Amino acid sequence: MTQFRVWAPTPESVAVEVGGERVPMAAADRGWRVAEVDWAGPGDDYRFVVDGDPLPDPRSTFQPEGVHGPSRVVDHAAFPWTDHGWRGLHLPSAVLYELHVGTFTPEGTFEAVVPKLDHIVELGVGAIELLPVGEFSGSRGWGYDGVDLYAPHHAYGGPDGLKKLVDACHHRGLAVVMDVVYNHLGPSGNYLSRFGPYFTDRYNTPWGDALNFDGADSDEVRRFFIDNALMWLRDYHIDGLRLDAVHAIVDTSATHLLEQLAGEVEVLSAHVGRPLTLIAESDLNDPRVVARREAGGYGMDAQWSDDFHHALHAALTGEKSGYYEDFGGLAHVATAMRQAFVYAGDYSPHRKRVHGRKPVGIAGHRFLGYLQNHDQVGNRAVGERSSHLMSTGRLKVGAALVLLSPFVPMLFQGEEWGASSPFQYFTDHEDAELGRLVSEGRRREFASFGWQPEDVPDPQAFETFERSRLDWDEVGREPHASLLAWHRALIDLRRSVPSLTDGRFDSVAVNCDDGVGRLVVVRPPVTVACNLGPTELRLPADGRLVLASEEGVRLDGDTMVLPPDSVAVVLAG
Amino acid sequence: MTQFRVWAPTPESVAVEVGGERVPMAAADRGWRVAEVDWAGPGDDYRFVVDGDPLPDPRSTFQPEGVHGPSRVVDHAAFPWTDHGWRGLHLPSAVLYELHVGTFTPEGTFEAVVPKLDHIVELGVGAIELLPVGEFSGSRGWGYDGVDLYAPHHAYGGPDGLKKLVDACHHRGLAVVMDVVYNHLGPSGNYLSRFGPYFTDRYNTPWGDALNFDGADSDEVRRFFIDNALMWLRDYHIDGLRLDAVHAIVDTSATHLLEQLAGEVEVLSAHVGRPLTLIAESDLNDPRVVARREAGGYGMDAQWSDDFHHALHAALTGEKSGYYEDFGGLAHVATAMRQAFVYAGDYSPHRKRVHGRKPVGIAGHRFLGYLQNHDQVGNRAVGERSSHLMSTGRLKVGAALVLLSPFVPMLFQGEEWGASSPFQYFTDHEDAELGRLVSEGRRREFASFGWQPEDVPDPQAFETFERSRLDWDEVGREPHASLLAWHRALIDLRRSVPSLTDGRFDSVAVNCDDGVGRLVVVRPPVTVACNLGPTELRLPADGRLVLASEEGVRLDGDTMVLPPDSVAVVLAG
Repeated sequence: MTQFRVWAPTPESVAVEVGGERVPMAAADRGWRVAEVDWAGPGDDYRFVVDGDPLPDPRSTFQPEGVHGPSRVVDHAAFPWTDHGWRGLHLPSAVLYELHVGTFTPEGTFEAVVPKLDHIVELGVGAIELLPVGEFSGSRGWGYDGVDLYAPHHAYGGPDGLKKLVDACHHRGLAVVMDVVYNHLGPSGNYLSRFGPYFTDRYNTPWGDALNFDGADSDEVRRFFIDNALMWLRDYHIDGLRLDAVHAIVDTSATHLLEQLAGEVEVLSAHVGRPLTLIAESDLNDPRVVARREAGGYGMDAQWSDDFHHALHAALTGEKSGYYEDFGGLAHVATAMRQAFVYAGDYSPHRKRVHGRKPVGIAGHRFLGYLQNHDQVGNRAVGERSSHLMSTGRLKVGAALVLLSPFVPMLFQGEEWGASSPFQYFTDHEDAELGRLVSEGRRREFASFGWQPEDVPDPQAFETFERSRLDWDEVGREPHASLLAWHRALIDLRRSVPSLTDGRFDSVAVNCDDGVGRLVVVRPPVTVACNLGPTELRLPADGRLVLASEEGVRLDGDTMVLPPDSVAVVLAG
Repeated sequence: MTQFRVWAPTPESVAVEVGGERVPMAAADRGWRVAEVDWAGPGDDYRFVVDGDPLPDPRSTFQPEGVHGPSRVVDHAAFPWTDHGWRGLHLPSAVLYELHVGTFTPEGTFEAVVPKLDHIVELGVGAIELLPVGEFSGSRGWGYDGVDLYAPHHAYGGPDGLKKLVDACHHRGLAVVMDVVYNHLGPSGNYLSRFGPYFTDRYNTPWGDALNFDGADSDEVRRFFIDNALMWLRDYHIDGLRLDAVHAIVDTSATHLLEQLAGEVEVLSAHVGRPLTLIAESDLNDPRVVARREAGGYGMDAQWSDDFHHALHAALTGEKSGYYEDFGGLAHVATAMRQAFVYAGDYSPHRKRVHGRKPVGIAGHRFLGYLQNHDQVGNRAVGERSSHLMSTGRLKVGAALVLLSPFVPMLFQGEEWGASSPFQYFTDHEDAELGRLVSEGRRREFASFGWQPEDVPDPQAFETFERSRLDWDEVGREPHASLLAWHRALIDLRRSVPSLTDGRFDSVAVNCDDGVGRLVVVRPPVTVACNLGPTELRLPADGRLVLASEEGVRLDGDTMVLPPDSVAVVLAG
């Protein structure tokens, strides 16, 4: 027997179609419909027939045939978990590793990730962070256009594949964070409006109508997303969620969706007996996002720090276009190192307004620091990684500044070895017209930055996806092997010196000079001395040289000698 | 010499037209334009010529010929203030009195209010609260369609008239609060978009595009409103502002407009050496609005408590239509008495969603309590006051519950004597087509509540305005005189018993029973015992009967005897 339930206040009639029969669903409280079907059980496919149209279950746990196909009944309790001793993710001491299942391995599945986990563990990473896995249109994509948010993508291996991956991670002491998108749904296969008022025209987003988080009937819209979060954490043993673009969640109600989510996740955490972590992507530079709920905050455990990325990227590449116009100069890196937000109540020329607010009393642990991520790489016209944009010397400087920062560091898959493959924007929209619009939109977007149409990869082309796949054969070759060793050494150091993970902003001292390219970050007892200038730099040094990015870096008595594009890590005492 | 300044990033060219000449304005920082004109001075009329079109100054301090006419230079420093000893408004101990300049007297001017001030002072009121006075289209209106927000309406007497009124109030120990509208502008005479991006299509409001408080170029939009607030408080000696419908201000930036305003008003308060008060009208039931800024709040001093009004109104009238469907029953009055918000995380049938949040740790002073106000009266089809809807007995019960509540009580002009005049919705749109649309819209709105078109007063008709004027001749007549005495006695009591203005929710005890109509509110040492039932009520009583709404109310030994629709106030000890 299976009880089918769906929130569907909008349609006149709803039935469930399963085993060749249609069973009318009875109205229950506040727009819910229910049917109990004796002959249905795990493994059976079904559809909800909404005013005559067979549609997938909005809360489908599996879409074996894609976003337009039937939903499948899954029994979460049946999975043979072996992670009984798992203690969960301790975010402040971790290094995160962003991973896209489709391009991480040639197979592009959850299970194919498993043999690579030892590589990640040996690197010193504490948690992988999966790009969104909810069913999206087609067989390849970044995942941000998901429409069946409860269903791990069929091309990745569905529910069982994901559970096997999580179990294997936990077995190796590795936590799993998952990217979830609660600010919009993809354009293809999105049938939510047939069921209820999930969307509102009171707010507009880059993707059209906003989700209805504060209007009439919004309680169940909120539950749809919060229950989704709870499902991953409970039924898939996921350790944390990364919430995509929370600035696009407009909610003026007295308890913001994020705060409600944090409260419910706290309850679940107590129940399952391990930490559960919420990480937001926020463009607001608003400390409220990560402030505790008791202090009027939304209670996210951490948020991404794009300002730190932008400051670092601009300093290392000299780029000035798009949002990088707000950055450049080592003073911005210094500010980011001491308060995450470079714009904290300051006028932003790019935004043409004052932006952000000082994160007073908020620790470095509340921010993720990174030199690159899927967005910063993939939203470039041809998906260049940092390793395509700067010298190996500068790459090493960037890695040292990220991995020895007061933030929770995050790497993007392959970053640790300077992977040669780009990470390009790829889609597989089954609707040909939509696919054409996406391809054209991409070309048009970059035309304004001076790109020729033929130089911008076609998102819909299989080759664009294929090109973005990691090449594991290159890991042992130079310069990749040295870069990998450099990342390992930095993470080793981070894990061995307690102050490096203390998250304190107030003990960070930065000395910089754009004229000569000097950037010295001191987090006692560690000093990270960088030379980004064109000529050798000599600095007074006190301590032991524990890491050098190249042979030319040396201690000459009390003087540190740094060739151009090099970094030294000195340990005092 | 006068320096003309205007923020105008949108137009190609701006000139100032004054004294028959056009002087081009030079571009200054961030979209400002400036011109210094030797021959211009106070009293001179001018216009800004925007891409060839002569328009009023968005920050005009006086529009002697209305919203489409020229602006006039005003020298605020020239006014002969006499209120040097004025100490300002102490909100927690005050009673407020909402006043519409146009209908308060036959003349409908600021100066005509002055001779009536003694009446207000004798009533025991501490502050008048003026409906919006910013220049709006035509010569009569509630004021919420203002477009020249810096210009006191010419029909009311302009800047000097307002200053004289404020000075006269302060002379009598009366503070002045002013209603300001920062969530939209009126439809007629709104030229702001010709000057800059004041509006955004990212959010929609009941009045169309929202004001641009968080997008590109929003800094100066915010300044436009905040500077307006500061002007009233500084140049007009206004003691506080009532901010209309702050729930319609959508601002996702790290510092909400209201919080920024509160911070700047705090600075000005220190400068002028007297309290400056901010009161919000908020439909959010969100304690953040009145929470201190240090606690993550917006730092408003108080907000209107519509829930208390609705609970009281529904209990006294039995009305169930519109938003009153969420109310009814004495338990709602009891909840409101103890936490202001009846909906504090509870499902609201009218809103079809969970609404509000418990205002933990927030005092009663942070809420205004009222039996009626301009909206609750005027938004009814024919503008009936409470005195048109209930017996004198019930009116007295309502007055006692408001004036002895933990809130800051507020009365609506004429409420104190049960004025016979309604307060109807009236406008005077000069644009005939707009006027027609407003008249029709009003009729259509009430048709859905079963009203015949001919029974709904035409907002544009002069008679609708005239009908809403107070009739001062009736004050001395019965039943008005008795009602006035009742209000005076209640306010006297409020001012003489310290616990009545202590704002404590935790000491309020309420005992109620809908079956017999018993509602007893205890704020030691005061007990307010009400009988809203159809038969005599006998209650145990301990103390002295200090106020009785009618002769039938009496103490019979240890028993309080209450006839139907009566109230007794007992003082213990």
